[in-house]
Order: sequence, then structure tokens, then C-alpha cells
Amino acid sequence: MAFLVKGGNGQYSYSNNSSFQRGAIHATKELINEAIAENLDIKNFSSSNTFRVTDLGCSVGPNTFVAVQNIIDAVNLKYQSQGHRTPEFQVFFNDHALNDFNTLFTSLPPDRLYYAAGVPEYQKRCWTKPLPAYNKGRIHYSNSSDKVVEAYAAQYAKDMECFLNARAQEVVCGGLVAIIVPGSPNGIPHSQVFVNMGSELLGSCLLDMVQKGIISEEKVDSFNLPTYFASPQEVEAAVERNGCFHIERMEMVPQEIPSGNSSTSRGRVMSSHMRAGMSGIIKEHFGEEIIDELFDAVHKKFDESSLFESWNRN
Amino acid sequence: MAFLVKGGNGQYSYSNNSSFQRGAIHATKELINEAIAENLDIKNFSSSNTFRVTDLGCSVGPNTFVAVQNIIDAVNLKYQSQGHRTPEFQVFFNDHALNDFNTLFTSLPPDRLYYAAGVPEYQKRCWTKPLPAYNKGRIHYSNSSDKVVEAYAAQYAKDMECFLNARAQEVVCGGLVAIIVPGSPNGIPHSQVFVNMGSELLGSCLLDMVQKGIISEEKVDSFNLPTYFASPQEVEAAVERNGCFHIERMEMVPQEIPSGNSSTSRGRVMSSHMRAGMSGIIKEHFGEEIIDELFDAVHKKFDESSLFESWNRN
Repeated sequence: MAFLVKGGNGQYSYSNNSSFQRGAIHATKELINEAIAENLDIKNFSSSNTFRVTDLGCSVGPNTFVAVQNIIDAVNLKYQSQGHRTPEFQVFFNDHALNDFNTLFTSLPPDRLYYAAGVPEYQKRCWTKPLPAYNKGRIHYSNSSDKVVEAYAAQYAKDMECFLNARAQEVVCGGLVAIIVPGSPNGIPHSQVFVNMGSELLGSCLLDMVQKGIISEEKVDSFNLPTYFASPQEVEAAVERNGCFHIERMEMVPQEIPSGNSSTSRGRVMSSHMRAGMSGIIKEHFGEEIIDELFDAVHKKFDESSLFESWNRN
Repeated sequence: MAFLVKGGNGQYSYSNNSSFQRGAIHATKELINEAIAENLDIKNFSSSNTFRVTDLGCSVGPNTFVAVQNIIDAVNLKYQSQGHRTPEFQVFFNDHALNDFNTLFTSLPPDRLYYAAGVPEYQKRCWTKPLPAYNKGRIHYSNSSDKVVEAYAAQYAKDMECFLNARAQEVVCGGLVAIIVPGSPNGIPHSQVFVNMGSELLGSCLLDMVQKGIISEEKVDSFNLPTYFASPQEVEAAVERNGCFHIERMEMVPQEIPSGNSSTSRGRVMSSHMRAGMSGIIKEHFGEEIIDELFDAVHKKFDESSLFESWNRN
């Protein structure tokens, strides 16, 4: 189990900078390799000669294929080291039905040594209901009332339970689940987590639009971003409560925040990342027409803020 | 095993008329139901409680989902009639990687009682090489030299062998394969099969373009449509030669040719169907720029020809 949280702040190119996920894959590669070498219990299933890998939330390549190849290489090594012949690999690429599977399928590595299938869903999205607590003037739990924070934490616990139960039905005895989730370190207040500060900044841009009469106050009050950055303690508690798995290993994975370059500010990069991830649910609630203006405002506010400095501090 | 060949010529609407495949599905539904009731040997695999269905060449719904639901209903009935509880169904939708899986996935029936996965390939396309016989002035084996006909028949035999070997590795003991292929009745010369006449008409339109100097003669001589309409005897021989399956049933399925209506001629409908099926390989060989003019010519030539009358005769 790996956590992506804040980390170093090195100089790097725009192209590296725009591929957050690749960074996560590299950072977790070694962890996954070691977990497979130490904890995968192949004697339980090596007789079937078929090894199945599922990428839950695969999105579109090439990162997807790098992650899968890492796993296959590590499993192959394990089989060889124990004197078993190489199994047949079946890889299930899972994401929401709206994911671009056409691009995924046409970019599959032609020299891959596995069977590939796309799976448009494994389970329903959990968080579909409105928050059962009134969150006036905010779109997130960060810096909000205890009631709102509790509602978010309860929804997170429920979603994890739903996720772990589904995996418990799928994974063979001796198999492994690697979970890479955004999180926050134990003991850090929610309001001091960098990504939560980003969500607050987004919320303040929406409130500015209320001031300008572009959207209504009610719209903002009834909108809540469905993201929660759990602590390792909370994840551990969820796994123990579920009882189907035990944690072999849990690590914080350093994550670099986007840096700008001469032609692109850090605020612009950050706003583009947020737009890529959140514009779908924002459109659904507020309508498409506010998107350009909203993320332009996010970009400017990030550049004017001292948020990136806070990343270095904690 | 079912063959789609020429049949009745009823009056029907454009919307029915434009869904050839739906006709094939309805026509084969009863055949598949009976084969499942009589020949599916569930005692061999009912202990696993998972039943897998694969649609090879699924294309895009809704026909796809109708075909799959027919199979699931028939299998459920069989399980129930033998006192087994309903199995968990897994459906694998297979087609070339370029198939529109995005549309397929987003149009999956929301109330389906099966797990769905998309599989971008099961095997390489077999026919990728040029024909090993010179086919001057033609793009098909119909009305061509014995050498060309033999080359087509040999390629067909090879492709069927490749197809059957792949299925032999996948299908469980007691399982069934339903093959719906375009074919021609025993004893009918290739040149009198309606679809082959259509291919000849297409070829003659390409030759007209050579006359006009739009494409070169060599281009036409080096192009061969990769379609072969085998007789039931040839299919039977292929299955026997392969030796992994035996034929439980083989039937001719009546197929209606497209009819026009007040605003759309039969030639237009036929040309649209041919364009939908063949424009890909024609573009690849001749370039995209000839497509509009070519299929306009096909449309006009169909309307001027007596080909539709020949459909009624044989």
C-alpha cells in the first residue's frame, strides 16, 4: 500500500511535469517488485498456469502499459526463481465506461506477451449522493465544520469498505492488491495538506463567481468535491475493519508538485492538472460555460498565492 | 453452424433494411436456442458456476447485446431444466482493436446480468498477404481463372484452420461454437452468387476509373477483395480436416437483400452497405480520395443493372 503525498521540488522539464502518473508509477515500481518477490504466494495457484493482473482505473497509455509490464516482469522472476515455468498472463484494463478504451486498445504494445481485455466497470461508483451535512461557502471539508469533516470521513470509510469487499471476491488466496491512493501524513491537519489548499483555492474562485453574479450561492453551497485525503491510520483502520486482507507494507511515496518553466507558470500547470481531473464533475453541477473562466482564475490565484511555498515548508 | 445466403425479397422499411445483422441474429436465434437445449453438455462444467460467452466480431450495439442476451437466456433455461442454479455470466466482446469499443461500452444495457469485457483481438487477421495468382482485370475470384479460384479456396481453407485451432484452445469440453458465415449453396457457380456479382460490379467501377485515368491498371490488378463465399461442403470439409469439433447442425439462413423506398433506391442501399464493409481496405490500397466517386458509381450501376432480379431467380 502506497501513499502519494508531498515531497521534493526539483527542477524538471514540462513534459515530465505534465505526467504526474508516470512519477507515481516509477515511485511505486520498487515497492511492488519487492512485495511480489516477498509476499506473492504462488504455490497456492501456480498449478493453473494462468496469471491474471487487473489495472483498476487504467486510463489511457503509455503509463498503463509500463505499470503492467513491471508487474509481469516481477511475477515472471518469482515463477522462475521457484522453478515454475512462465505462466500465461491475462491483463484486465478496468476503468469507467467513459474512459477512452479505443485509444487504449489501439496503443497496446504490439510485442506484449499477455492477453489484454478492457473491462468498462467492476463496480458502481460509490459516492453519488449529496453530502449529508450543510457546507456553506465551501466545496470541500478542508477548514470546514466538524460535521462536514465527519461526513467526508464516513463516506471515505464506506467507499473503502465497498472497494475492499469487491477485491476480496476477486483476488485468489496468496494474491496481492497494490493500492496507490492520495493521502496525507498522520497528524497533519486537513487544512495544511497541499491538495486540500488547492481545493480551497478552487472554492474561493467559485465564490468570486458568485460575487460577480455568474453562478448562484446555492449552487456553490450544494457542491462538494468527492475527494478525501486519508491518513495511513485511517487506511489501516479500514483494512482491519474489513478483515479480508492484511497490510504487508505501507509507504509514503514522495510526489513532486508541478513546476513551471520559462513559458509556463506553476499556477498554469497546477490549474491544468486540476482541470483535467475535476472539470467533469464541475461541468455536471455548474454547466460547461463557466469552465474556461474558472480555471483561468485558478491559474492566476495560484500564481499570486504562496501555496507552493507551503509545499516546501511541511 | 448457419449460412447466410440469398432468400426472400419482402417489402420493409429503410431502418430495418439498414440493419442486415439484426436480420441474421433473428434468423439464427432459434437455431442457437435449439443447439444449446440439445447439445450444450453442462454436466462437464456446471461445477465452476461461471459461464463464459464470447462474441467474436462483436462490432457495436444494439445487435450485439441482443445476440448475447439470446444465448444467456437459452443457457439459463438449460441450467434450470437440469436443476442447476443460474451461473455467473462473463461476456467477452471481441473485435479488431480499431472497433469502436467506446460506443460499445457506453451503450451496454444497464440492467444486464453479466460481466462484460472488451477484447481487442483474439488472433491476428489471417489474410494479410497478396494473392499468389495474377488476377488481371478483376478484384475477386468470381468469373476468374481456375488458378485464382484455387488460390482463394486455399486461403479460405487456411483461414478456417487458423480460426478453428484458436477456438479449440478456448472452448471447454461440452461447449458450443456458433459460426455465422456468408456462404453459397452447394452446386451454385461462384459467378451466380449475388454478393459475388456485387463484387464484380464494384470491380467494373474501378476499371471505369482506370479508363478515366483516375487510377492505374496495375493498382486494380494487384487488388483482391479478401472475401470468399464457401459452400456447406467446403465448411464441412474444413471442420473435418481440423478434427477438433464436429458439426451438430448446419443450416442455410434466409437473408433478405436491401430494398429501397420512395426516397432511397435499392442501388443506394446496396452501395451504402458495401461502402460500410469495404471502404477500409479500398482506402488502404487506392487512397481515400476515390471513395465518394467509386461508391456513387456503384450506386448508379446497381440501379441500372438487373442484378436484383437475378436474386429472385436463383
